[in-house]
Amino acid sequence: MHDGVSEFDVIRRICDGRSDLDPRVLIGPGDDLAMIKASPPEGSMDMDDRLLLGVDQLVDGLHVDLDEVSLEEAGRKAVCRSLSDIAAMAGRPVATLVSALVPAKWNDEQAMVLFNAMRSAASEHHAPLVGGDLAVHKDTTGRLVCSVTVVGTPSRTGAVSRFNAQAGDGLYVTGELGGAWRSRHHLEFSPRLAESAMLLAILGDRLHAMIDISDGLGRDASHMVEKSNLQVVIEGSSIPCREGFEVEHAVGDGEDYELLFAASGDVPMALGNCPVTRIGEFKERETASDCHVLLDWKDKIVDVSRAGWEHDSS
Amino acid sequence: MHDGVSEFDVIRRICDGRSDLDPRVLIGPGDDLAMIKASPPEGSMDMDDRLLLGVDQLVDGLHVDLDEVSLEEAGRKAVCRSLSDIAAMAGRPVATLVSALVPAKWNDEQAMVLFNAMRSAASEHHAPLVGGDLAVHKDTTGRLVCSVTVVGTPSRTGAVSRFNAQAGDGLYVTGELGGAWRSRHHLEFSPRLAESAMLLAILGDRLHAMIDISDGLGRDASHMVEKSNLQVVIEGSSIPCREGFEVEHAVGDGEDYELLFAASGDVPMALGNCPVTRIGEFKERETASDCHVLLDWKDKIVDVSRAGWEHDSS
Repeated sequence: MHDGVSEFDVIRRICDGRSDLDPRVLIGPGDDLAMIKASPPEGSMDMDDRLLLGVDQLVDGLHVDLDEVSLEEAGRKAVCRSLSDIAAMAGRPVATLVSALVPAKWNDEQAMVLFNAMRSAASEHHAPLVGGDLAVHKDTTGRLVCSVTVVGTPSRTGAVSRFNAQAGDGLYVTGELGGAWRSRHHLEFSPRLAESAMLLAILGDRLHAMIDISDGLGRDASHMVEKSNLQVVIEGSSIPCREGFEVEHAVGDGEDYELLFAASGDVPMALGNCPVTRIGEFKERETASDCHVLLDWKDKIVDVSRAGWEHDSS
Repeated sequence: MHDGVSEFDVIRRICDGRSDLDPRVLIGPGDDLAMIKASPPEGSMDMDDRLLLGVDQLVDGLHVDLDEVSLEEAGRKAVCRSLSDIAAMAGRPVATLVSALVPAKWNDEQAMVLFNAMRSAASEHHAPLVGGDLAVHKDTTGRLVCSVTVVGTPSRTGAVSRFNAQAGDGLYVTGELGGAWRSRHHLEFSPRLAESAMLLAILGDRLHAMIDISDGLGRDASHMVEKSNLQVVIEGSSIPCREGFEVEHAVGDGEDYELLFAASGDVPMALGNCPVTRIGEFKERETASDCHVLLDWKDKIVDVSRAGWEHDSS
């Protein structure tokens, strides 16, 4: 046997641990493809053939730093940030697929730890890991690259897009913002799947638009209005900042994976244990200027639509 | 603006080209997730909630060499090899998602060329590109890494697994084998989607098992019997070798992306323009030895179950 990771060995060992698979998994990992049932296990009568699909990467050096973070933490984060997108659409997870390109110096055990962490995070959120691909860097300096695809189903009333905010809507956020990297929140958060389902159940069609905060409050709020003639005005003093962090961090740091949403009418102040805070309002845009997200803070109004962290572009 | 690839710019420009999207795409790229209808566009009455899902990587230096291959060719190959897995299960493509980690020195145009090639290959096979993620290497020596997820639906009679061959079945292969890399076949092949659908329509439940040849005939045949008490005996003289290549290449080179299948009874000699050749037979294993795939060639019988190329492990 050669040294290093054996693709077949690792994939075989991942496949052998099938016992925790969801009953929706008809063919698990190991065949050419997996086969799943997309409908809820209880078999709702109004069968639905709509699917939610998305993919995100996690790259060592960009989205985590493996000098400071364990493989378990990296694997968990890779899956949870993709599942956060299902929460942002108020969907329900169905399945997860992962691929990893791992460093040349890794052994099988390290690959197993990574895949098991991803499998465990996926199972925890009822999105069983049904597919995986593993390759090994030829280049000895190559760092871990993961790609995670999530499959979900929308709620019966449809998916909640990021684009449908209305003038007069309040802007709300779950949890606390800021310092996600330094506080290790970006490794420890749970995707807000239950909260977004509760929110949709309570608000119904008053929940107009939703996104999860990954790039940062400023930038993600700007994504919500970029296709509209709306602007958002955020009240700095109302932003729920994580302990030890200021408004500047809450607006620009990113990686909070909290829900940011537009709704009309009354909105609950909490979803279970999770606080919900009104932090601003959507208005008609006054000019055709580029200032779509305004922060009202310390007697100044500043444009924060590009305050967030643009992933990977530096 | 910084130099190099801008994730947002490229993703926006990819999203702008939505006009070629399939009517099954309810929400295209650009929102938190895409939303698709999984059922066939004509809306069959027996609605089916089963999905086929798989993921594969394409890494520069492992699966292509960008010193010798264009970005168009690399993007096309990345998508076609994932779609080949849908052909191997006799499924129908529904959607494609791609992620790419691109070299630091790339500009937006290079990223666009890659994504457009992937989108075009996906559209060509009725598997619209509905999701994408783009990141840029920090390390200046980092090479292109793509991950492609495919979503499909099984035929009404179910997916054709790789594992259900029966003693007495013939082993058949489509097209020609060998020298896929040197002949550039690995860049130019079309996934055998139409052929596998025809095969299933003609053979019905006599089509017992199927796989696509990626690792090589020897190794992929061994995948078909690894969970059984069967062995395969391949008749070397019957293997359809690509012009200029010998049986050794046909058995071990890999990347042919032809269908390799087990069937009982009569099998057609062609599917449209694509030849089908009987190259061997499945038998009960005589001993518990590891020799599951035997090649009968030039008066010798040799084990070729590990003859194929193990991707990425060198």
